Amino acid sequence: MTNRKLLTEYVSAFTHSLVFSGVSDAVISPGSRSTPLAYACMKQEGLAVHRQIDERSAGYYALGLAKASGKPVMLLCTSGTAAANFFPAIVEAYYARVPLLVVTADRPHELREVGAPQAINQINLFGAHVKWSADLPMPEEDNRLDFLSRHLHRSVASAKTEPKGPVHLNVPFREPLRIDFEQSYESKGEVMHFVGESALSAQAEGFLLETLELERGLLVVGEMPEPLPAVFWDFAEKLQWPILADPLSNLRANTAKQHQHLIIDSYDALLKNESFKSAIQPEAVIRIGPQPVSKPLTAFLAAVKPKIYAVMDESPMMRDAQSVVTHHLQASAKNLWQLPLGQQKESAYLAEWQKGSMLFWQLADEHCETELDEGVLAKAFFGELDKCNLVIGSSMPIRDVDTYFRTTDKDILMYANRGANGIDGVVSTAFGVQAANKRHTYLYIGDLSFLHDMNGLIASRLQETDMTIVVMNNDGGGIFSYLPQSEEERYFEALFGTPTGLKFEDAARMYDTEYAAVETKQQLIDALRTEKHKSVKIIEVFTDRANNTKTHRKLWNRLNEELGK
Amino acid sequence: MTNRKLLTEYVSAFTHSLVFSGVSDAVISPGSRSTPLAYACMKQEGLAVHRQIDERSAGYYALGLAKASGKPVMLLCTSGTAAANFFPAIVEAYYARVPLLVVTADRPHELREVGAPQAINQINLFGAHVKWSADLPMPEEDNRLDFLSRHLHRSVASAKTEPKGPVHLNVPFREPLRIDFEQSYESKGEVMHFVGESALSAQAEGFLLETLELERGLLVVGEMPEPLPAVFWDFAEKLQWPILADPLSNLRANTAKQHQHLIIDSYDALLKNESFKSAIQPEAVIRIGPQPVSKPLTAFLAAVKPKIYAVMDESPMMRDAQSVVTHHLQASAKNLWQLPLGQQKESAYLAEWQKGSMLFWQLADEHCETELDEGVLAKAFFGELDKCNLVIGSSMPIRDVDTYFRTTDKDILMYANRGANGIDGVVSTAFGVQAANKRHTYLYIGDLSFLHDMNGLIASRLQETDMTIVVMNNDGGGIFSYLPQSEEERYFEALFGTPTGLKFEDAARMYDTEYAAVETKQQLIDALRTEKHKSVKIIEVFTDRANNTKTHRKLWNRLNEELGK
Repeated sequence: MTNRKLLTEYVSAFTHSLVFSGVSDAVISPGSRSTPLAYACMKQEGLAVHRQIDERSAGYYALGLAKASGKPVMLLCTSGTAAANFFPAIVEAYYARVPLLVVTADRPHELREVGAPQAINQINLFGAHVKWSADLPMPEEDNRLDFLSRHLHRSVASAKTEPKGPVHLNVPFREPLRIDFEQSYESKGEVMHFVGESALSAQAEGFLLETLELERGLLVVGEMPEPLPAVFWDFAEKLQWPILADPLSNLRANTAKQHQHLIIDSYDALLKNESFKSAIQPEAVIRIGPQPVSKPLTAFLAAVKPKIYAVMDESPMMRDAQSVVTHHLQASAKNLWQLPLGQQKESAYLAEWQKGSMLFWQLADEHCETELDEGVLAKAFFGELDKCNLVIGSSMPIRDVDTYFRTTDKDILMYANRGANGIDGVVSTAFGVQAANKRHTYLYIGDLSFLHDMNGLIASRLQETDMTIVVMNNDGGGIFSYLPQSEEERYFEALFGTPTGLKFEDAARMYDTEYAAVETKQQLIDALRTEKHKSVKIIEVFTDRANNTKTHRKLWNRLNEELGK
Repeated sequence: MTNRKLLTEYVSAFTHSLVFSGVSDAVISPGSRSTPLAYACMKQEGLAVHRQIDERSAGYYALGLAKASGKPVMLLCTSGTAAANFFPAIVEAYYARVPLLVVTADRPHELREVGAPQAINQINLFGAHVKWSADLPMPEEDNRLDFLSRHLHRSVASAKTEPKGPVHLNVPFREPLRIDFEQSYESKGEVMHFVGESALSAQAEGFLLETLELERGLLVVGEMPEPLPAVFWDFAEKLQWPILADPLSNLRANTAKQHQHLIIDSYDALLKNESFKSAIQPEAVIRIGPQPVSKPLTAFLAAVKPKIYAVMDESPMMRDAQSVVTHHLQASAKNLWQLPLGQQKESAYLAEWQKGSMLFWQLADEHCETELDEGVLAKAFFGELDKCNLVIGSSMPIRDVDTYFRTTDKDILMYANRGANGIDGVVSTAFGVQAANKRHTYLYIGDLSFLHDMNGLIASRLQETDMTIVVMNNDGGGIFSYLPQSEEERYFEALFGTPTGLKFEDAARMYDTEYAAVETKQQLIDALRTEKHKSVKIIEVFTDRANNTKTHRKLWNRLNEELGK
């Protein structure tokens, strides 16, 4: 066999095994060393290829795609610093538990660590932030394709096993790098894969059932990969506990009207109030998903230290930053709603939460009639959404959603990068999310975060998309105005505000997107309702950092007046 | 003592020790956890603070600054994926041997690996690509400032020890994060540092002197951190060997007219010719610095396999990608020109090289009169330079410089990222280089590379600069047209050309820079000569990928005709 034949056979087996294992998307950045695998991806039936020139953005694009599709995504780049650019997205995927198959092309052994160009030490390149890493052999005369298919099986299985996460394969190629496009490939057999599901012991079930009988109980739901099934709602209606629903729980939208009374979506505001907090202490808390975004909720639970704080988390790393969890049920959350729970009676505790919630939304509505700040604009924006994805930036945007996104039966799927909460890569994550389910996607993002990943827009030049980006431009690091540092004026603008004076109209022109600049609620609503003719629309909302902090506090003061200090 | 006192004392000791050890610049990205150190940097006498919002760009900015200043630069960011964004620049610094002190702020132990926001596992985050990594203790009642100052001494010493490179310090802080600006700090003593210099044994000197007596010898000079001293020229004039000078050798500019006869700057072109190659075989080669950019030179030396191929390299990793080096002198290159060499006689071998070189430049000049391609434009551009830095992008730009930059006595310092040869981070590297010596700086870069690090321009919004950027826009990956892949049309544009159709006029407007679009040699010269009123000027040169390849080959064909096939 010629070298080209062996190479073709190797990369064909590679992509074939991937598709067999359930991978249907590959994100590729241009490069030379990765040529054989890039060709094989283009050729492979059942594999859609997405392209992005900036590898950092490519990583986050793959992350969004994997997150929204629920399937592992292949991420391919050439050798050298290209691979190092994947690192931020890999770290995020590791903590957010998103399955990625990261494939880095490499030089053969004789070109490693000898000063050859674009050759860096790629062995275990991503350290502790991948679940598994392997250095594959080169295509060779005695191609062990059976071994290759099993290693790919293990890679994908590992990425998909809870807690899900990224896996790294390093693949060396020797020149020449061209494959034979006519050569056919027939697999000699792949590994069939069956995965067992985690089930709780009778003892654990007994503990949960006993806990669920308590009246003053809270069900806290953190990020969920998709909307919960109908059986969850049967369970929740029997339980009659208030459900504190994080923005990413997928419970604040797509929730039928008859179930909405169970959802408490205003806890972030209510738990800033001392009277409310002392009146509302729970006996027990059960949490599924990671810790919610809300700092007031976290602080509340840390202060109360409930006698029972049970977390259902499939990983030994149960995510308990306050050291208050008392019971760790290391199993799938679905074990909870499959419990044989009897119908509980109507709960006064739930009613207390509902009363607080009603009050908050009444005050918030009034506030939004008379004031103008980022929160007010955010609430108006959320009111316009339906049948779409909403990708939410870190820092202020996720907090705006937490405060102002009221539970609805409209069809909105929400996503954010909460593994490491970085402001980086958010634009690309949004494009990846859009590519997964092809729905119209809204990205709600701050100006620094948008600027950080403006290269995410390159994706829109290389594949179809349907995106509206709402950039809250307060010219710098808005969130820092809420931190204690802001009391110290010295160096504040230099180190934290970092105003760049940049506006994004020119970025919109460069990427040939639609653009609107708005300052008022009505302008924002008009911009959102104007029919979109291009694949991307950018709406830049100009707000004032100092004013945001001030009027934001007005609402909390009103709430305090009503609830008592 | 209060917590704030301890914290202030700790970070003051930190920055004081840094400055004592010779660090004079810190590059900071905004973030919360890093607040105490950021404040201390602002406060620290003798430390200049540079800011960049995008940590990836910040990393490359620090790299450029360290490269051009010859001093280690501190790079600071907050916890989380911010730190992961430093990775590409750290990898480049590791292979390019540039001293960096990478400082990542971290959460205290109780917030690590428990699902806390912006907390990732930062221990040994950069793996094999830093020379040393330490996790520092938190500020505490019994602050061991003597230990802290010694660890900082070791960090900086390690970064500066040959082979130089990046060092990583992870520093945990617990809230509150504010320091006392009025609190003074007096060091209780720092470590005085004396570094021994590598000297060759009598045996090694004997070997070198014997080798240098050979007539058909080549001195190959790769990247040098700064122009070589006068004693080098005394040595070179005695030696009478041809000096093959890489673009980054700092020998192609700042070279007095009387020494220029020794410099061979056209070897990349000449060594594409078979007749010339067989006539010009050397008996011995001595190389200082890393392997030159030129592929024809590398291939030539690999084919000739000179009986003596001696490399002076202070690292055990002597950079020999072709496995042809026969003698490794692990010592500073300055040992070479300090040898007691007698005056050699005029050399026929040198004359042969000079004759080839004359011919090449004659043909190149003729070519540039009649043709229009990237090379022709490049040559016109280089002719305009003086008293400036020239930062050169990877891929085609460095090759254009290799081919078309003719040795001159003008004052031009050249820089490029050749550690891993990435196209990433080049814009930021240029701004960092400019910040080091404050000279007018030209960045010569391709469109994909410019796009990759467009965020590098953010630096121009946060500090003064003086930059002219010449972007060669051939709408995509120009270098791939020179690779064997280009013979295969299938998927070529999708995977390698990746045309985005992006033009940079809007980017220029966004960043408020001057802008000119040019297509001809005269337009380019005019744009370069037009007085610059803003801190940054972008000149976008539109060329045609297909045409570049074609007319490029014309010149080689002419050369082949003259030299014989």
